[in-house]
Amino acid sequence: MVANKVVDLRSDTVTKPSESMRAAMAAAEVDDDVLGADPTAHRFEEEMARITGKEAALFVPSGTMANLISVLVHCDTRGSEVILGDKSHIHVYENGGISTIGGVHPKTVKNNPDGTIDIDKIVAAIRHPDGSLYYPTTRLICLENTHANCGGKCLSAEYTNKVGEVAKSHGLKLHIDGARIFNASVALGVPVHQLVKAADSVSVCISKGLGAPVGSVIVGSNAFVEKAKILRKTLGGGMRQVGILCAAAHVAVRETVSKLADDHRRAKVLADGLKKIKHFTVDSTSVETNMVSLLDLPIDFSGLHCITFKYPT
Amino acid sequence: MVANKVVDLRSDTVTKPSESMRAAMAAAEVDDDVLGADPTAHRFEEEMARITGKEAALFVPSGTMANLISVLVHCDTRGSEVILGDKSHIHVYENGGISTIGGVHPKTVKNNPDGTIDIDKIVAAIRHPDGSLYYPTTRLICLENTHANCGGKCLSAEYTNKVGEVAKSHGLKLHIDGARIFNASVALGVPVHQLVKAADSVSVCISKGLGAPVGSVIVGSNAFVEKAKILRKTLGGGMRQVGILCAAAHVAVRETVSKLADDHRRAKVLADGLKKIKHFTVDSTSVETNMVSLLDLPIDFSGLHCITFKYPT
Amino acid sequence: MVANKVVDLRSDTVTKPSESMRAAMAAAEVDDDVLGADPTAHRFEEEMARITGKEAALFVPSGTMANLISVLVHCDTRGSEVILGDKSHIHVYENGGISTIGGVHPKTVKNNPDGTIDIDKIVAAIRHPDGSLYYPTTRLICLENTHANCGGKCLSAEYTNKVGEVAKSHGLKLHIDGARIFNASVALGVPVHQLVKAADSVSVCISKGLGAPVGSVIVGSNAFVEKAKILRKTLGGGMRQVGILCAAAHVAVRETVSKLADDHRRAKVLADGLKKIKHFTVDSTSVETNMVSLLDLPIDFSGLHCITFKYPT
Amino acid sequence: MVANKVVDLRSDTVTKPSESMRAAMAAAEVDDDVLGADPTAHRFEEEMARITGKEAALFVPSGTMANLISVLVHCDTRGSEVILGDKSHIHVYENGGISTIGGVHPKTVKNNPDGTIDIDKIVAAIRHPDGSLYYPTTRLICLENTHANCGGKCLSAEYTNKVGEVAKSHGLKLHIDGARIFNASVALGVPVHQLVKAADSVSVCISKGLGAPVGSVIVGSNAFVEKAKILRKTLGGGMRQVGILCAAAHVAVRETVSKLADDHRRAKVLADGLKKIKHFTVDSTSVETNMVSLLDLPIDFSGLHCITFKYPT
Repeated sequence: MVANKVVDLRSDTVTKPSESMRAAMAAAEVDDDVLGADPTAHRFEEEMARITGKEAALFVPSGTMANLISVLVHCDTRGSEVILGDKSHIHVYENGGISTIGGVHPKTVKNNPDGTIDIDKIVAAIRHPDGSLYYPTTRLICLENTHANCGGKCLSAEYTNKVGEVAKSHGLKLHIDGARIFNASVALGVPVHQLVKAADSVSVCISKGLGAPVGSVIVGSNAFVEKAKILRKTLGGGMRQVGILCAAAHVAVRETVSKLADDHRRAKVLADGLKKIKHFTVDSTSVETNMVSLLDLPIDFSGLHCITFKYPT
Repeated sequence: MVANKVVDLRSDTVTKPSESMRAAMAAAEVDDDVLGADPTAHRFEEEMARITGKEAALFVPSGTMANLISVLVHCDTRGSEVILGDKSHIHVYENGGISTIGGVHPKTVKNNPDGTIDIDKIVAAIRHPDGSLYYPTTRLICLENTHANCGGKCLSAEYTNKVGEVAKSHGLKLHIDGARIFNASVALGVPVHQLVKAADSVSVCISKGLGAPVGSVIVGSNAFVEKAKILRKTLGGGMRQVGILCAAAHVAVRETVSKLADDHRRAKVLADGLKKIKHFTVDSTSVETNMVSLLDLPIDFSGLHCITFKYPT
Repeated sequence: MVANKVVDLRSDTVTKPSESMRAAMAAAEVDDDVLGADPTAHRFEEEMARITGKEAALFVPSGTMANLISVLVHCDTRGSEVILGDKSHIHVYENGGISTIGGVHPKTVKNNPDGTIDIDKIVAAIRHPDGSLYYPTTRLICLENTHANCGGKCLSAEYTNKVGEVAKSHGLKLHIDGARIFNASVALGVPVHQLVKAADSVSVCISKGLGAPVGSVIVGSNAFVEKAKILRKTLGGGMRQVGILCAAAHVAVRETVSKLADDHRRAKVLADGLKKIKHFTVDSTSVETNMVSLLDLPIDFSGLHCITFKYPT
Repeated sequence: MVANKVVDLRSDTVTKPSESMRAAMAAAEVDDDVLGADPTAHRFEEEMARITGKEAALFVPSGTMANLISVLVHCDTRGSEVILGDKSHIHVYENGGISTIGGVHPKTVKNNPDGTIDIDKIVAAIRHPDGSLYYPTTRLICLENTHANCGGKCLSAEYTNKVGEVAKSHGLKLHIDGARIFNASVALGVPVHQLVKAADSVSVCISKGLGAPVGSVIVGSNAFVEKAKILRKTLGGGMRQVGILCAAAHVAVRETVSKLADDHRRAKVLADGLKKIKHFTVDSTSVETNMVSLLDLPIDFSGLHCITFKYPT
């Protein structure tokens, strides 16, 4: 029974830790992770590296820091440019930190409604300054899967691989903002490691639909994570007995991924219901994961801006 | 007679100083301008302030520095965003310096073929972070007149004033990249000061169509120029006996502006001629100032990328 | 009995959460703190504001981020300079982040062995660029209490107040890196709020001697904390259900402060003992808080670089 | 006769171009140097490369930009640190631009009265972050010859070579701020190329004692200058028909270097005379080049802060 319970649909970031997460935190074996000694953090990072098929992983306090570090590691030289979607979370919702903190120049390219960017537009946006004095140097392409601003749409492995080939053939890196990559994996029925195979780095959020209280993970090569660790310290994201948070995150990944299909099904149910309400415009066929978007609502429901559905446990 | 003379049409930046400019440089009264003592620099800056209808002016080594300083003075606080056209010179050709050197986050909006940006798109791009943690703060809008990447198109005073009203009503500043503002003034038959009335700052290039060897000028309020002067020093644009260059620039403004109408007429003649050549696609009706653009040239004329016409004196 | 237990003296950052902290974490009432809704975070921040005598407080993932945010908020304008001790933690151990991430120019002044900086040296280092083009603008003075690199020495309220007067009379802000301000408070027998009365901002670490698993707090005026919150988001320090960590931190402050006097007493005992060991040079009279420094150790004890004593619970 | 002429001793930056410089500017063969086509700029840059014994040279608008570019090219990766003297021009008089514009963290080391920095202090300041998360990475050492803030003292080739060995053995670069390196060369009787042999880059000012109206030169390897050229463009230091200024600079180097010995002799004469004046404290034995410093002047001669002697031609 869920009596007297407010179902908070503002965002999947409002999810709260389950009892098993709380128990895991209370019992977590911890040590100083800045000194590289926290066993629970190590175990969780190894697990995330395994799931994503990358060499190494790094726990960080937030998705914003995960993306910021990733972009800055790939663009560690002054005069770098990143190609990213004009609706991407990094460009729209992260305070412009890659520029204002990192001095990286963004080159935005139009996102399609399905979250993709046309391959030829990516290619056209690449700038090699060799022999030119006028351009910053493109070093990175960013994708987002699922794409929040496009209503939680999934990028296929095929599309991502094609972008990866473009990146490789031009000597660029590919970063995936995979804050909700588990949602994409579940919705597409494709393992996470296949979805991010082409990527040099991926950020994965554990405190959205997966329900852990705090944290994201960056994955990539050992060399990438080594640099990421230094930058995490510089930004102030190095945390001491962080095993507490990693213990909950580990439980979240183990227990909650299997429930995401239910989230997606319920989001569909909600969308189907909402569109029957007078004045509500909802394209329920576009609901691929856990997001429901109300379009062109002609009545003022203050605060009701973007509904994200996460079923209360 | 222009016998045996190569007419260099690569860019109006290749213009060379006239005899009168050379004489002016040889005779210029100079002193240490970093110490604020160069009389020729002062005179030229006063003249430029007068022409543009602003309180003060500052001579700088290049148009790139003029724009960089202007954007950075308006965006002097960490976390600033600038709205500018996706085809603007600042965004495309200036190394991304506003981000890579200045830490300013660019928000690009689509340039129309005539160099304008739709007013409603500008309004939609403005971001006020009050009450929000996710956005940088919009502080500046940039226009470009004439618009180089749009083939030298002119922005009308009416359009610019409308953008100025948007800026003012949202507490933003307006900067005009007026590298070729004299061309716009001549083509439109409207004094420069009317074209830039709504602007808080304008950069004007003296070494393009006007033919001075080196330099641009920034104009704005006394307070703006005071800050610009400090930033010019920081960037290394403070020059000692700069009256040498200002003397030539002063002659250029006095002598060459009246000849720009001839440039524009000849650009039209050239465009009309070029479009008669087989395989050449030139829309001569779109030639408004001193630029001729060849479109979709199906044959490889190496190096012939963008033709800009400046009549050899 | 502490049988079979390794006493880890590398740093007071290795302290582990107590049972009561673990219980508090397991039971913490949480919500989305980025959306401003976590009640446990709010309660802890209010308590820290009260203890330090400031208007507001903000929980952040680390001491490094606490200092980075504080310096950057006070130096939010391009061209800022901060005066700080040449042995200060910010200058020596925080990756130069205030410059490499924040673009702030550091002006270091010699730290005395007791952690102070001579007042006249601070005054001499202040640079006002009014009427000058050559200098960055001093906006901030930083002190550190206790001073880690000076062996955990305490700054008195009198000294700090004097520096505060210098700051105020020159229009500067004063930030105190109070990572171990509770140690100073206990050792001096002076309440924290008196030690930091002159400061515009203070960073306080909860995961060092106080033993919480993760986190630091920044305190200051409401306006300061409002800006700090935005910068925390930009850097990626905004955490969702952060009440988990704040619950432990709250317990740490409530339960552990009273035990710091024991830490200090035991550090003295350890120093007295160590100096009796042949080849060991230890000035036990200089032990003021929880740090013991071995000087000029002529034998290679690999890894034994700086001993910090925290009694195992 | 120099009747009715004010001898301006504020700085050697106030020197004015000679008649031969003016004639050279009026006659200079020029082209667009941003497009790499200005023959006079090329000739001057080749001459400066030859004199300094380096592969390539680049003309820039000022000494500040020369140093800024040099430091930023050597420190092109985020998280870089530079070791430099606490009295160095770069640290004291250049607006902190290496940090505020370039994000480079300065590590200042004490300058001795003769302009040197103790070798062991340089070695002690070097920080390799390998295996550490706390430090920025030292990439560069800067020296200054002659040293302005130390009264125009000369660094010997021997000293510079020793610092060069330290740099090399630690994988660091060495930059020399050689604004007045010709003065050092003349005073020491050692060719410039020997004084800068150990340096990876040198900035040389042409508009101080050499008397050219505007400009400095950076020299180094071809690869260094290639990067410097891009950064010059980013900063806005790329100038079009810059051959005008290079023509004067070329004359300055050819004609004025031989007169520097006279400057030095007259500075000595001035110092000897000044110290006979009551209340004046001048250590004339410390005058090595063209600078005379008045020490502890007990009377207020407003504006008389630092006297630099340049004989009017």
